[in-house]
Amino acid sequence: MTGHIFTERMKAIHQQLKEKRVDCLVVTKAANVTYTTGFLGEDSWAVITARSVYLVTDSRYTEQAQTECMGCRIVQRANYSPIAEATAKLVTRQRSARTIAIEKSTSLADFDILRKHIKSRLKTVAGIIESSRSIKDSDEVAAIRSAASIAAKALKIIGGRIKPGMNESELAGMLDLEIRKVGATSSFDTIVAFGPNASRPHHKPTTRKLKQIDTILIDFGARYKGYCCDITRCLTIGRTTKFYRKVYAVVEQAQAAAIKMVKAGVDMIKVDAAAREAIRQHDLPVYDHGTGHGLGLEIHELPFIRAQGKGKLQAGQVITIEPGIYMPGKLGVRIEDDVLVTETGCEILTRDCPHDPSLLRQQR
Amino acid sequence: MTGHIFTERMKAIHQQLKEKRVDCLVVTKAANVTYTTGFLGEDSWAVITARSVYLVTDSRYTEQAQTECMGCRIVQRANYSPIAEATAKLVTRQRSARTIAIEKSTSLADFDILRKHIKSRLKTVAGIIESSRSIKDSDEVAAIRSAASIAAKALKIIGGRIKPGMNESELAGMLDLEIRKVGATSSFDTIVAFGPNASRPHHKPTTRKLKQIDTILIDFGARYKGYCCDITRCLTIGRTTKFYRKVYAVVEQAQAAAIKMVKAGVDMIKVDAAAREAIRQHDLPVYDHGTGHGLGLEIHELPFIRAQGKGKLQAGQVITIEPGIYMPGKLGVRIEDDVLVTETGCEILTRDCPHDPSLLRQQR
Repeated sequence: MTGHIFTERMKAIHQQLKEKRVDCLVVTKAANVTYTTGFLGEDSWAVITARSVYLVTDSRYTEQAQTECMGCRIVQRANYSPIAEATAKLVTRQRSARTIAIEKSTSLADFDILRKHIKSRLKTVAGIIESSRSIKDSDEVAAIRSAASIAAKALKIIGGRIKPGMNESELAGMLDLEIRKVGATSSFDTIVAFGPNASRPHHKPTTRKLKQIDTILIDFGARYKGYCCDITRCLTIGRTTKFYRKVYAVVEQAQAAAIKMVKAGVDMIKVDAAAREAIRQHDLPVYDHGTGHGLGLEIHELPFIRAQGKGKLQAGQVITIEPGIYMPGKLGVRIEDDVLVTETGCEILTRDCPHDPSLLRQQR
Repeated sequence: MTGHIFTERMKAIHQQLKEKRVDCLVVTKAANVTYTTGFLGEDSWAVITARSVYLVTDSRYTEQAQTECMGCRIVQRANYSPIAEATAKLVTRQRSARTIAIEKSTSLADFDILRKHIKSRLKTVAGIIESSRSIKDSDEVAAIRSAASIAAKALKIIGGRIKPGMNESELAGMLDLEIRKVGATSSFDTIVAFGPNASRPHHKPTTRKLKQIDTILIDFGARYKGYCCDITRCLTIGRTTKFYRKVYAVVEQAQAAAIKMVKAGVDMIKVDAAAREAIRQHDLPVYDHGTGHGLGLEIHELPFIRAQGKGKLQAGQVITIEPGIYMPGKLGVRIEDDVLVTETGCEILTRDCPHDPSLLRQQR
């Protein structure tokens, strides 16, 4: 991250800490550590004070931290003592810090160690970094854009190679391999579902083999510089039934209706309702998952676009729009794109990845 | 898991709960949920009382739970209310449960919700399920054996396909694809390191391309039925230096020395020392990671074989033995196998995967 962006992020976070009367924040959630330090490794925490940001890590990651963390001080702890103990010692050295806050995602075990070693007032907080993270800065949007471009290229390559006899798990591995070739990784466990398996939104790929008549649902993404994209496409390799084509068209309409609603200041519940209403109008079953979610350093993060959701969209949020129609034992169709919310509407970041299954197949 | 094994696991856990005067245990750690219920999905908790084991899940997983969880009662919570709330309600209905224990790996946020809704005495506990898990039953050993066999086959296939110009990340993806073809998944993020990159034990695969003169370190594993294996092999595609061959031979001797020590009742620190001593004797740098770790439902679990470790090995534990020699900017060699501790010594579960790099290359 550039120095300017680091300064901006810290300004927003310090403002929140001030409002909550917190002198020192212990950041334990991995995505929040990355956001506040730039560090992409594991097993490390951040400590934010009025003056500095510290990264508490160990010898495995010191070299990496020196490259990735421009604005912060790196504290290398002993390898076999708990990270909570090293962090407590660091916090204790901050003389001006009277109220220390710990993220609520921290485990009870780690909290016990912190409480044992820190004599100052300890409180727990939630959502401070997460709410900053929900509005993406230019570095973040650029990374998501790159992830989307990598994913689109991978699907294009794979699209032309799908053949009957391949199994779901194999197809997931093929996609993952294309994503890895360019140095990225999959942003979550790829879902590949053949035929009726697609009616389960969270299907895990099996060794079921592809038949000529099967429809294919692929829900996947790439992670690049820590940032995720999340795309679902439905493909076919043979002729589809008239009913499947109807369902597909309705899902596409539902998605378009929701995307049309996306704009800064709009109630999220209205975006959700637009997609569901389009499906209801055709007397088809309405999905029971959310219509979308924020994404960035985590594959699911704020905001959540749900039937029961509250709040308004804000410019700079990046969200998925992913309605679906599921008929157990029969079929499942979902179309998912990632959009950047703007003051005037939205920009589709996954535009490089065509919806139309036949288009994907033709690009051999 | 078979009914007999489920009964045995529960007997051991109930014994521990009795000793700790706990009437009801809330299990939140995913691997512990799998161990006590058989459930392989996500976002679910278990509740163990004197009479029953409950799995608290949601509609996404109910069908899967009905297949996987033979001995327990399945509680389907509402999709958009927190799992901690649904679990608290279930616990509150257990009239005979006076003391409720929560796993220490639980987050502060979840603990807050539980505390708000549960009126009984709440305490936190650690390691109850983990200590049972450290001794594997026959179902578990069989699953690890299968995972090891899948991983060995995948490396054999890939071994013959490695060519100059491929990048580290791509090679990791190729291995992952072979593992997926048979319906398994990688048990952790595969490490592939070319040349001097291997001197970092936790190297992340990059787009660095393989040269004819490079040595290759691959640390990978398969996960089958929830159970992991963990293997490291060093390969070469060209001629190696005399020094590299010396280092390789010393690491192999160090590993053999440690494996020779493995037997139920032996101090773990002696196993660790045997490997380190073999390297020290040759005036080569001694690694600063552990010599091994338990593995099973998690890739790293009890016991840990470390220079500072305590305790004795027990029959039924499955551990890695993985000494290495690392010389920054120059080379890295590590050899890792998984062994089952027995009363008379140990059984190497990763025997199907030959050590000798040239053997791997010949199996084209």
